[in-house]
Parts: sequence; structure tokens; C-alpha cells
Amino acid sequence: MGNELIEIPVRTNRSNELVNVTGQVQKALTDSGVKEGILVAHVMHTTAAITINENADPDVVHDILLQLSKISPDCREFRHGEGNSDAHVKASLIGNSVTIPVSHSRLILGTWQGIYFCEFDGPRSRKLIVRVMGE
Amino acid sequence: MGNELIEIPVRTNRSNELVNVTGQVQKALTDSGVKEGILVAHVMHTTAAITINENADPDVVHDILLQLSKISPDCREFRHGEGNSDAHVKASLIGNSVTIPVSHSRLILGTWQGIYFCEFDGPRSRKLIVRVMGE
Amino acid sequence: MGNELIEIPVRTNRSNELVNVTGQVQKALTDSGVKEGILVAHVMHTTAAITINENADPDVVHDILLQLSKISPDCREFRHGEGNSDAHVKASLIGNSVTIPVSHSRLILGTWQGIYFCEFDGPRSRKLIVRVMGE
Repeated sequence: MGNELIEIPVRTNRSNELVNVTGQVQKALTDSGVKEGILVAHVMHTTAAITINENADPDVVHDILLQLSKISPDCREFRHGEGNSDAHVKASLIGNSVTIPVSHSRLILGTWQGIYFCEFDGPRSRKLIVRVMGE
Repeated sequence: MGNELIEIPVRTNRSNELVNVTGQVQKALTDSGVKEGILVAHVMHTTAAITINENADPDVVHDILLQLSKISPDCREFRHGEGNSDAHVKASLIGNSVTIPVSHSRLILGTWQGIYFCEFDGPRSRKLIVRVMGE
Repeated sequence: MGNELIEIPVRTNRSNELVNVTGQVQKALTDSGVKEGILVAHVMHTTAAITINENADPDVVHDILLQLSKISPDCREFRHGEGNSDAHVKASLIGNSVTIPVSHSRLILGTWQGIYFCEFDGPRSRKLIVRVMGE
């Protein structure tokens, strides 16, 4: 097992944004020294999430954020006083962790797969925790 | 590795309800004796789910359930005879497990994060299975 | 730990389809020789996903696909040139991996739970990667 939890700080710049963190997560894996196993990346917030999606055309990111805003718009019946319930809903829809197989010290991702930190109530300073399991 | 699977019974009281199970899941972790690793909590049902979201203001839970009912309403074109397809859809949108890093025998959760069992077709007697991996 | 990653090919036949892969995933577990632990099944694509839902009445699968098409329809404001952004959104909503507890060499699934590969932009030849952790 990787000896320590690894913390990845993520700075977001917009209210809704997908930040490609594939490089930082792969670096955390390399630092752990684990060659075969799994990696878990966990978001420490309730108005942010993490997902795997296309790493090539940035229009895909645009379209995902656009559709999420239609799926979880602000709503006059919301009661939560901070006015960010739409972000809480998005966070639970997308999910707050990803688990990725690891082999030969590499994340096993498809050609078009990248890992995105999903900001739904930014801009903020955010934190991702990485745990690597294996040998 | 924790020697045994741990079963957490969850009694729900409404058709749609988010039950905070953070305490029971932390207890399962403590009982496992694992100090460093990950914990997986898995829902054994197809009209329920599990998520991590805000543990402070109960209005967030209200707003999440409200928006989920708009995202996955009942639909006259549904074919499934039990009339609970909206709940099956919600279950797959939210997901039926969470994986959480563990360190110093504690779940690594952010300040505002709690673990919620999500009932979408209650009230029922439900079951959560916990597996802890690590040392 | 299971020594090797196991690859499961999945052939889909429609644009949107849920393919029951429970048997192949259980076989991958059996082949790994792991008796106690967890199994991670990871989709290598960005317009497909994986979920756990009802394995009995095929109408549930119909209803899930129907509702997902309403939740993430095609949209004239989408920019991505391939015209499959609806599929990218569905992939991130459902998620690209499942993590399942394992005990006595069996997947710990509820009576009604089956594992479904979710095709959202088919028909295509797809790939699922399985990693088993444990002893």
C-alpha cells in the first residue's frame, strides 16, 4: 500500500468549471511507489465532484457543464439559505470519488479518458485526497 | 484487510429520504481494526443509493430530494409494472456505493461531508454492506 | 491481490443499450483467485458507463434508458462536433466504474442486483477492465 494519503490542491477560477487533474493524479501515483493496484481520488467538498470524461476536445467540457445546468438549475422552492443547492445536487449526481485500476505504475485509462475535478460553486481553493492501494 | 464484511441495517420511514449513516459507517471502520486504507459502503438494493453530501443544514437534503424528483419523475411511458422506475433511475444516477480513504482509523471526510443512505422507494428495511481494505 | 488486470470485451448492438455483464465479471473474479476483498470494474470509454440495477424485469432497463434520454437529450447549443455530447453527459452521470465487495470468492450483490455495461453511443466494440484486490 502507498504509505501516505496524498493531498492535491485545486484552484478553480469560475463558478462552474471542469479542471483536468490527470497529470497531478498520475504524479501522486508515481510518488506512492505502487505498481499494481487501484487509486482512489476523493473530493473533500459537497459542492464539487470528480469525473472521468473526454480529454481531447474542450467543447465536451463545455457541453457537460451546459447540460448539468439544465439538469440541476437553481429552483425557487429550494430552502438552503446559501443559494447553492444546485451545486449540491450536481455533486451527488456526478459523485465525489473515482476509483481507477493501476498497472505498471500507470493509471489504466482509455485513450480519450482524462480525470476532471468538477467545480460547481466556485471560484474556490479546493482539495483532492488520493489513496493508492496495492504493491 | 478487515476480516469480515460488516452489515449495517437501515430502517427508512418515507418514500424518499436521506438517512445520515456516517456514525454507523465510522463504527464499522473502528470495528474492522484497519488504520490505513479505504472503506467501501455498498447498497444491496436497486431502488436505493448512497452519497456524500452536506451534514450541517437539513435543508440541503430537502433540496436534493426535491430536485431528484424533478430530474426523475414518474413517467407514463414507463413499462415496469411495479411503478417504481423513477426510483430505479435515481439509484443509478446517484450510485450504489461510496469509496472513502481511511487514515489513523478515521474516515477522511471534509468538514461538511456526511454519508447518506438514499431511500427512493420506501419505507423499507434496507441493508448496507461495508468492506474495509488496508492495514 | 489478483495478479493481473482482466479485460472483458463487450459488443453492443444499439445506440443506447444496457448489457448485463454480471456473469463475465463474476468469472473474472473467479479467475483472479481472490476470496475476500473488493472488485473494481472500469469502463475504458467516455460515452459509455457501468451501473448496478435490477436484473429481473427487462422493463426496468427500458425505463432507465428512456428517462436518461429525457435527462440528457441532444441540445442545439452543444458545440462538440461529433454530435454525441448527450452520451458524454450520460457517462458522467452514471459513472465509469463500480466497486463491489467480494466474499467467499463471490460478488456481494443483492437478490435483484445485476451489473450493466451502459452503451450511450453505439453500436461499438467496448472494453471493461477488472481489478480484484484482496486475498
